Amino acid sequence: MSLKDTRWEELADIKRVLARRDWFPGTSGNLAIKVDDQPLSFLVTASGKDKTKETNEDFLLVDGQGKPVGDTHLKPSDETLLHKEIYNKTNAGCSLHVHTVDNNVISELYGDKGSITFKGQEIIKACGLWEEDAELTIPIIYNHAHIPTLATEFGEFVKEDAGAVLIRNHGITVWGRTALEAKKYLEACEFLFSYHLKLLSFKAIKNNLSRINGQ
Amino acid sequence: MSLKDTRWEELADIKRVLARRDWFPGTSGNLAIKVDDQPLSFLVTASGKDKTKETNEDFLLVDGQGKPVGDTHLKPSDETLLHKEIYNKTNAGCSLHVHTVDNNVISELYGDKGSITFKGQEIIKACGLWEEDAELTIPIIYNHAHIPTLATEFGEFVKEDAGAVLIRNHGITVWGRTALEAKKYLEACEFLFSYHLKLLSFKAIKNNLSRINGQ
Amino acid sequence: MSLKDTRWEELADIKRVLARRDWFPGTSGNLAIKVDDQPLSFLVTASGKDKTKETNEDFLLVDGQGKPVGDTHLKPSDETLLHKEIYNKTNAGCSLHVHTVDNNVISELYGDKGSITFKGQEIIKACGLWEEDAELTIPIIYNHAHIPTLATEFGEFVKEDAGAVLIRNHGITVWGRTALEAKKYLEACEFLFSYHLKLLSFKAIKNNLSRINGQ
Amino acid sequence: MSLKDTRWEELADIKRVLARRDWFPGTSGNLAIKVDDQPLSFLVTASGKDKTKETNEDFLLVDGQGKPVGDTHLKPSDETLLHKEIYNKTNAGCSLHVHTVDNNVISELYGDKGSITFKGQEIIKACGLWEEDAELTIPIIYNHAHIPTLATEFGEFVKEDAGAVLIRNHGITVWGRTALEAKKYLEACEFLFSYHLKLLSFKAIKNNLSRINGQ
Repeated sequence: MSLKDTRWEELADIKRVLARRDWFPGTSGNLAIKVDDQPLSFLVTASGKDKTKETNEDFLLVDGQGKPVGDTHLKPSDETLLHKEIYNKTNAGCSLHVHTVDNNVISELYGDKGSITFKGQEIIKACGLWEEDAELTIPIIYNHAHIPTLATEFGEFVKEDAGAVLIRNHGITVWGRTALEAKKYLEACEFLFSYHLKLLSFKAIKNNLSRINGQ
Repeated sequence: MSLKDTRWEELADIKRVLARRDWFPGTSGNLAIKVDDQPLSFLVTASGKDKTKETNEDFLLVDGQGKPVGDTHLKPSDETLLHKEIYNKTNAGCSLHVHTVDNNVISELYGDKGSITFKGQEIIKACGLWEEDAELTIPIIYNHAHIPTLATEFGEFVKEDAGAVLIRNHGITVWGRTALEAKKYLEACEFLFSYHLKLLSFKAIKNNLSRINGQ
Repeated sequence: MSLKDTRWEELADIKRVLARRDWFPGTSGNLAIKVDDQPLSFLVTASGKDKTKETNEDFLLVDGQGKPVGDTHLKPSDETLLHKEIYNKTNAGCSLHVHTVDNNVISELYGDKGSITFKGQEIIKACGLWEEDAELTIPIIYNHAHIPTLATEFGEFVKEDAGAVLIRNHGITVWGRTALEAKKYLEACEFLFSYHLKLLSFKAIKNNLSRINGQ
Repeated sequence: MSLKDTRWEELADIKRVLARRDWFPGTSGNLAIKVDDQPLSFLVTASGKDKTKETNEDFLLVDGQGKPVGDTHLKPSDETLLHKEIYNKTNAGCSLHVHTVDNNVISELYGDKGSITFKGQEIIKACGLWEEDAELTIPIIYNHAHIPTLATEFGEFVKEDAGAVLIRNHGITVWGRTALEAKKYLEACEFLFSYHLKLLSFKAIKNNLSRINGQ
């Protein structure tokens, strides 16, 4: 199996698992995996496909500028420019972008602050932070309709080989050195978002109940 | 494969994916796909079937009046009249009707207003609205028990080749030029409903918490 | 295929679909389907099995008293007495008992009232009520630890050929003339429970917001 | 099939079902099953694997000290020390550790109290408590970053052959005499957590509504 085929399989595996969770509503979301470094090339999801299906047109190979390699009628995802930022600036090997209700709610509730920080949660280790009081901060950026502008702002937060950025009312983009690291990071973030929201609502309930009882 | 068989497969594919999400509770929901234009004919779900199963009696062919074509013991869905409105008034090729908890809650919370409008959410693009400040307005109509009356009121909101109408305490009907467009539109609406509800609850929580802190 | 085998398949089908939804937590839940009328016999789930698995020991045949027919090492579900009530008192052909978080919450919130009534919801039709203003009332009974006592109280509410009873902090039991009718009834009830709870929470939120704005 | 192979299959079965529920976010969670008593050996999940996949490197055999038996490049889960406590102190045959949003929320809301108690819920029977007013108390311990310290504190609560301990902001560990008993216990606990949280929120809503109406 060629390197491209191996990477294709890895990405198809991730697509299948995330599709089962309905993390690609309305054909949203896009995924990429690096194939070569010299020169840079990566597989990226073709635009507008139903990601609950598996076909041999799900991904296409693009170069370091995000342009298709070779002859193809496929169009790379509009957000290929964001994936390009990642592979040009870091040693990441895989990058994933999904829309979930919880990541959108978090992005809107904390968007004005520009970031959200998590601390004291075991699953933070899945983001590669192993110290006891490790903090995970995820930046939240404005959802510029102009993709090159969005990609530029996004790129400012792409520094490490694994990381995550929330785009307000849009979704999350995560990346990691390997497909597994990227998926692990994504799942940890989504867990933290859901946990944070649910805990927030129950803290409010307990707060309310104790005020009532205290009156 | 005949055109009818191809369309059958497309519709069966959508049925399978939506059934996996439990979007057909209590045999509710109905689906249709256009087969021919001249004269108009479409496949529609047979009445009262368990949509978690796949059989060769899941759909039947009906004409432009919604009457079965040829000999059959199958009964078209009661709401075939609504699908008929769509194919008679637009160039839509597929139409989907499902009941979800969230679309029912939205239809009841905003039913008195007669519609709900979404704005500033990336996934609105999945409904074919690409401008930066695009607004998506979904009408909410009364759930007339008399289906021809329901179909007539529904028909007043069927103007574009892709669209959606909520029926109060009943469900959503969406349509699009292709099966993929209709499914995409449906998923985007459901995402917007769930997002709207969850955000609403957390805005109320934050509101409450800041009032308490501000006292 | 014998009648017993046909019924076995029908019940196994339902078990598979409900197991996929995780409606049998902790091996809870039990299912039954009538095989013969004269004399009465029905298949019922064997006690203590993991219902996410499919084996040829999932069900066993019992007589009209709920006693195993023929030689078997299998023990019928403890709640076989409740299924027995149904087949002895009505023409039902299938009965299903499941624990879900939402049916438990409803049973506790409205348990003191002794019942919950739904009205003005399209999905009520799935319970065989087709009039425009049909009301569906589901009794809620006390969860007697002594099963014969529970079965007797349960039996007082078993009058129609299709119906449902909630057992407080325990679960729902539904029945219908056919396997499909019972499943349809169950899904409609669960939809109504989830819808009712979610709507209740958003009505409270809107109520709160308008009080704040009105101050 | 050797005893080791039989146990491997049992554990793989559980892993598959729990993975389908997304109970292993970010490669979190770990599972173990006893193979032999004299001397003690058990299979435990290898560290850092994606648990949605099934491979012949998912588990490895360790001895009574949690050290790999024989030559292997696999590393046992970091939390093997907790499983070791269970097999050394009780007759348990299987132990499961998972992270869910609800078990984390419960662990944080009641962490200061040191435990949570459930009563009057039918599903408590799945934890082997059959008396009418049986109470189930689950201890909640501090999430020490130093695993041997965590294992020691955890071990203080490991007394019965079946049980559960919540680790704050981390997850739950349950065990039972057999794989089925451990899985049953786990599902009952998760059901109780979700039920408790949902009921708590609706009690607060009803409380609020009656205060408003009572004013």
